[in-house]
Amino acid sequence: MITLYHCASARSFRPLWMLEELGLAYDLKMLPFPPRMFAKDYLAINPLGTIPYLIDGETRMTESAGICHYLGIKYGPTPLTVAPEEADYGAYLNWLHFGEATLTFPQALVLRYSRLEPPERRSPQVVEDYSRWFLGRLRAVDAVVAAQETLCAGRFTAADVSVGYALMLANNLGLAREFVPATQAYWQRLAARRAFLRALAAQEETARRDGIGQDPTKKAG
Amino acid sequence: MITLYHCASARSFRPLWMLEELGLAYDLKMLPFPPRMFAKDYLAINPLGTIPYLIDGETRMTESAGICHYLGIKYGPTPLTVAPEEADYGAYLNWLHFGEATLTFPQALVLRYSRLEPPERRSPQVVEDYSRWFLGRLRAVDAVVAAQETLCAGRFTAADVSVGYALMLANNLGLAREFVPATQAYWQRLAARRAFLRALAAQEETARRDGIGQDPTKKAG
Repeated sequence: MITLYHCASARSFRPLWMLEELGLAYDLKMLPFPPRMFAKDYLAINPLGTIPYLIDGETRMTESAGICHYLGIKYGPTPLTVAPEEADYGAYLNWLHFGEATLTFPQALVLRYSRLEPPERRSPQVVEDYSRWFLGRLRAVDAVVAAQETLCAGRFTAADVSVGYALMLANNLGLAREFVPATQAYWQRLAARRAFLRALAAQEETARRDGIGQDPTKKAG
Repeated sequence: MITLYHCASARSFRPLWMLEELGLAYDLKMLPFPPRMFAKDYLAINPLGTIPYLIDGETRMTESAGICHYLGIKYGPTPLTVAPEEADYGAYLNWLHFGEATLTFPQALVLRYSRLEPPERRSPQVVEDYSRWFLGRLRAVDAVVAAQETLCAGRFTAADVSVGYALMLANNLGLAREFVPATQAYWQRLAARRAFLRALAAQEETARRDGIGQDPTKKAG
């Protein structure tokens, strides 16, 4: 049985969504955010205190986009991955990394310096710098989804999970106001997928059952 | 012929190093940093203005760790990649992503808010927050290289290229002072590799030939 440690709507939503897309059984462990402050026992499991944390047999992983890649290969073959023989293999790998390294980290800064830090440590300058940085990099997505339904290979893949989570976070942070219409429509298509909705329901039900508090990405400022 | 757009010692050093590890022929295009300010023609090639930018036939890529993965698969089989059948496949994918998404972005903040921004926009708080953040996450590397020569699979792989570049950047930014001895020794082993030294020589020779200025990661504050 696969075990996934997760915080509501955090980047660990990627592997949760991917597990639902693959139709795999899993044990979801919800933690309050940030776990290194509110769930100190978790440091015995993942010393970094970060989420996601995936346990699958002897395999342990902490990188959300890397886990999506891993699950697609380990539990494939599946159309959710792109094979090296396909023309879009490089594009697939690029979007997988781009969703996290380029589109999510800047938003983590926006979240941190607008909401998570105490008022005296907030930084409107950094929030502004990395909101603009995110929207600048998002132009690469805008250009592609203006012309096609998904990012690559003519079908929905783990690359859309990786980038889709960045759009979900942007939506929760209020940055989706700035989406161009093609990207807004792409995001709406992703958010209407059954596996996406099942992942949302799974985190809500598990949080309720275990008494885990609010979604930090949605908390008022 | 593979073409790689690169700035001195920037994250595009990863694909450069990987090309040298693979012994592939390539055309190296050096740009001043940041290219979107000092090489505006480059925006016609990569509208994001970011580096790296890899051109290989019809393939175009911008994510440095994703490119290392791609090159290993496309030009393999090679011991530089880890196959899905190997026990460390998940670890391999995780380190590939971790090197960039977790260990490099925080250092980009340190560089930006300590050196690249004009004095009135610098932020000692952000520099301190993300220096500590980087060193905290680096504990995952410390734990592994205390016990083994490389990160996974009992050999040098693209995962070491991904994380190794983060250590190179830390060294250039002055953060390597804080490395534990095992990580310092691991970094020294990586920096002594022939392919690493060839990549350094290639960027220096090309920059000199094309009159490209100083390495921004080494510029005095």
